Amino acid sequence: MSRKIVIIGAVALGPKVACRAYRADPTVQVTLIDQNRDISYGGCGIPFFVSGDISDIKALMSTSFHLVRDESFFKEAKGVLVHSQTRATAINRRDRKVRLQDLLTGREEDCPYDTLVLATGAVPVKPNIPGIALEGVTTLSNPAEAQLIKNALSQGQVTHCVIIGAGPIGLEMAQAVSELWGVETTLLEIQDQILPGILDPDLARMLSTELKRHEVNLLLEERAVRILGDDQGKVIKVITDQREIPADLVILAAGVRPNTSLAEEAGLTIGSTGAISVNEFLQTSDPDIYAGGDCIELPHLITRQPVWYPSGSLANRQGRVIGTNAAGGRETFPGVTGSFAVKLFDLSAGRSGLTQAAALQAGFDAQEALVIQADRAHFYPGQELIALKLVADRKTRRVLGLSGVAKNGDALLARLNAIAGALPYQPTIEDVANLEIPYSPPFSGAMDILNAVANTLKNTLEGKNRPLAVDQFRELFEGRKENEILFVDVRGPRNALPYVQRFSPDWINIPGETLTQGLGDLPKNKRLVLVCNSGVRSYEAQIVLDQEGITNTLNLAGGIAAVKWAGLNPLEEED
Amino acid sequence: MSRKIVIIGAVALGPKVACRAYRADPTVQVTLIDQNRDISYGGCGIPFFVSGDISDIKALMSTSFHLVRDESFFKEAKGVLVHSQTRATAINRRDRKVRLQDLLTGREEDCPYDTLVLATGAVPVKPNIPGIALEGVTTLSNPAEAQLIKNALSQGQVTHCVIIGAGPIGLEMAQAVSELWGVETTLLEIQDQILPGILDPDLARMLSTELKRHEVNLLLEERAVRILGDDQGKVIKVITDQREIPADLVILAAGVRPNTSLAEEAGLTIGSTGAISVNEFLQTSDPDIYAGGDCIELPHLITRQPVWYPSGSLANRQGRVIGTNAAGGRETFPGVTGSFAVKLFDLSAGRSGLTQAAALQAGFDAQEALVIQADRAHFYPGQELIALKLVADRKTRRVLGLSGVAKNGDALLARLNAIAGALPYQPTIEDVANLEIPYSPPFSGAMDILNAVANTLKNTLEGKNRPLAVDQFRELFEGRKENEILFVDVRGPRNALPYVQRFSPDWINIPGETLTQGLGDLPKNKRLVLVCNSGVRSYEAQIVLDQEGITNTLNLAGGIAAVKWAGLNPLEEED
Repeated sequence: MSRKIVIIGAVALGPKVACRAYRADPTVQVTLIDQNRDISYGGCGIPFFVSGDISDIKALMSTSFHLVRDESFFKEAKGVLVHSQTRATAINRRDRKVRLQDLLTGREEDCPYDTLVLATGAVPVKPNIPGIALEGVTTLSNPAEAQLIKNALSQGQVTHCVIIGAGPIGLEMAQAVSELWGVETTLLEIQDQILPGILDPDLARMLSTELKRHEVNLLLEERAVRILGDDQGKVIKVITDQREIPADLVILAAGVRPNTSLAEEAGLTIGSTGAISVNEFLQTSDPDIYAGGDCIELPHLITRQPVWYPSGSLANRQGRVIGTNAAGGRETFPGVTGSFAVKLFDLSAGRSGLTQAAALQAGFDAQEALVIQADRAHFYPGQELIALKLVADRKTRRVLGLSGVAKNGDALLARLNAIAGALPYQPTIEDVANLEIPYSPPFSGAMDILNAVANTLKNTLEGKNRPLAVDQFRELFEGRKENEILFVDVRGPRNALPYVQRFSPDWINIPGETLTQGLGDLPKNKRLVLVCNSGVRSYEAQIVLDQEGITNTLNLAGGIAAVKWAGLNPLEEED
Repeated sequence: MSRKIVIIGAVALGPKVACRAYRADPTVQVTLIDQNRDISYGGCGIPFFVSGDISDIKALMSTSFHLVRDESFFKEAKGVLVHSQTRATAINRRDRKVRLQDLLTGREEDCPYDTLVLATGAVPVKPNIPGIALEGVTTLSNPAEAQLIKNALSQGQVTHCVIIGAGPIGLEMAQAVSELWGVETTLLEIQDQILPGILDPDLARMLSTELKRHEVNLLLEERAVRILGDDQGKVIKVITDQREIPADLVILAAGVRPNTSLAEEAGLTIGSTGAISVNEFLQTSDPDIYAGGDCIELPHLITRQPVWYPSGSLANRQGRVIGTNAAGGRETFPGVTGSFAVKLFDLSAGRSGLTQAAALQAGFDAQEALVIQADRAHFYPGQELIALKLVADRKTRRVLGLSGVAKNGDALLARLNAIAGALPYQPTIEDVANLEIPYSPPFSGAMDILNAVANTLKNTLEGKNRPLAVDQFRELFEGRKENEILFVDVRGPRNALPYVQRFSPDWINIPGETLTQGLGDLPKNKRLVLVCNSGVRSYEAQIVLDQEGITNTLNLAGGIAAVKWAGLNPLEEED
């Protein structure tokens, strides 16, 4: 008799397990269960359907060769039996059966398994706010909700949208509703930055500037306390702890949590993060039951702590491993390094490994370096700037993570991927300084920004480069007192002039190459903040001044470019 | 007295050593020697100056903040003394002196050193062809030659150009002279492929197709035997072993060789590749003499054999290490993995690590897999195809290299960089299958092509995927005999129809999802070649047929997409 594999959950991981198991051993009998009607859709694509980048929701449920992945597709092409609109209500581990309920007929039956796979994913966190059941208030967890939102937008029913939560989905939705549909959009976030826990505040700030530039009303450190509706139960406004905001669409994007109820009820081990525990073969505490995707926790390959890291991409890779193992193989999935990418209007941001904040939190003696540099040879046309931040442990010199923001998302991905490739092997800063990525002027600099940021971190650890982060720069600038601090602009006069004109005598210009002749202009008793466009010339100036015994200096990390991206340029008033 | 560092050679590595040594220890006294007038130029940018992408040659000699890196720049900004147009004629190692000759005055003098750095680079190989001294025949080794070529082009003096050698410079120059200047361009290559030794023939073929598409006259396996001039000694034609080609500009791009004469005469150890031997600190056999860049050999980190690998990017990274060490530090440069990138018209190509050919040559039991897939989620708009080839050792499952061709060069770089980051640590195929690169639909697929190509290689090693390379496909197709071979197109009818109409009965259509019903149409005694657009559906078909006991099948690797890119589509006659 053929081996029975039953998979609960038919999005991302589930279908991957099913197809892989069948390909690994076409004699297995695979059944895929899902409580919803829509299955095997690309959930990460939902915001791009709302934005209009993807015109037909069917595209999210189709293969790359335009076949819709519905029940008959799985049956015909993949040899997989699908039961949609069917809920798994209990697992009988002793007899190896799953109790199924047909949601249309209510009929229940037992489904026997040799191997069970839990692909139950994550469910949206519904914030505890009065009014979230009103019409026009929705999460964005499946194609049906996406279609409702898009219908409302395309029928002109939405003029004010409030999005609660500035995580990746919140950001993508803010762009989606404001850009194509011209909706007045408010993004509400309890924390003091967007993408909290995902990007460090300095990089997050660059994206906040981009949001404001595109007229998204970003409200940080502000909490929705109530959602109000009209007589028909249709939403009309969101009340926060600071104001009232009109709204005819409210999108709840306050994150997700692992969907573990079935596993818990079956007595499977739940880990410290609240997600299902699995071993390296992705087996739960019951070896006949595998689990993967957004409902499991895994070891973080850098911190060695268990992490719950929901990601459609991890789910796909894990799905292949589970599919192989369910069909009798023995593959492993060792853990997670924590990668992330998001596109927001004209900027892209991403990360491989840990942020500086996460590294400190994990107990590392973490030091960061920020560099802004062109993504191609500086003489090659069409270049764009990338901001990269490398984080390493001071004692072991081990690289812990790379984050970045850039205009060219693929060029950013290229640098993040290089570190993603190295991270599982505990690379040192020196490894990254010498990392040999392919070079030609249309692709990178001869000393690529990836090597440069490692060198900057080395210089920082040696005390040769004493950086000043942009937010600290702005604080120092705002709080400056004469006779205490001097901003020394080492750029050419054309760039420096507007600053000197406006902020003299606190801001002076001595071009870097004339610094040794200009020493007489420098006061001995003040702290000097060295400023250039990108932080490179100001670093060189710091070296020269150190040599002259002038050591009370700070180098503006990333230069004026970083200040501008962060929306902290003293020449422009903040809004 | 301050430490004297003397550097011979002021392009790429030399200036980097100088600036780094000074920054590491501003008390050192650095002297930079070069026999040419132009120094510190971005040699890799020269073809882009000729093409017009860069309008002013000065851009190649400038910093990213538009300061020309001339003698006074180095003196003022970097504390480095430059002697250009000065030749180092001999090294007196016992007394630690270099003999210098001023090329303008002829005056000679000894220059004492504590540390000497050889940055003598590479020199163009001048092929032994009668006529290479004619006017209009030139290498492309410095800005002066580039300026002469561009002058001739811009003054309309060139209607026919012959480029000898289809390496990276030959390709970039073919694009430069043909695209902007509309010059009838012939590219001559002795080997049977472009980029010999750099890319495998199948990927090189994709670039050859791109050359032809842009009307570059590519002549492979053809040798220039003589260059003829007119009465004034100006070139008029190139005679090959097969024809005569009119030419008023001949560019010799037959490669470079390490410039080691000074080192050899000084008795320093030369390695098996003909380049200077150095240790991991980049010291030559004389510990007071460092060498780096295009004149040294290094261990290959994969083959462990010494390799000579000229690259402006390696030179820059090595320059920093030598600069640190010359100033008293102790950094290492462990070796080379062999990375490469080139842009050619609308395609980009590149490599991290070994090609399949190089892996076999190095004694590995190498197996390759080729995949063609979109660079973003398949539902996200604006995607382009990438062709990736992964090479690994069958026994150890160690990944040896990744090569690729793509329309979006940055997206290609992203995948190559991921492998570049991992290569020094001996990753396995399984590592790449699970490699966690940042994911979001605008950047990659949930199962990115990088993971997919590793999975395809796994399937190939397991015998589940039995691929047929495009050139073998074409051979089988051309030599097909009825009753021996059948091409089974598993795409939808719309894609398959033109092939069936033209090549029936040798080409039939059974869409993949109906394959199990269509088994009756398949002959039992023929070899089947399974064909789809990208090689994915045809692989699935192979699995299904295996299960039915039909195992004499081959899966066209990369599908019709690969066939088209290689210019081998049976529907189109080859030129």
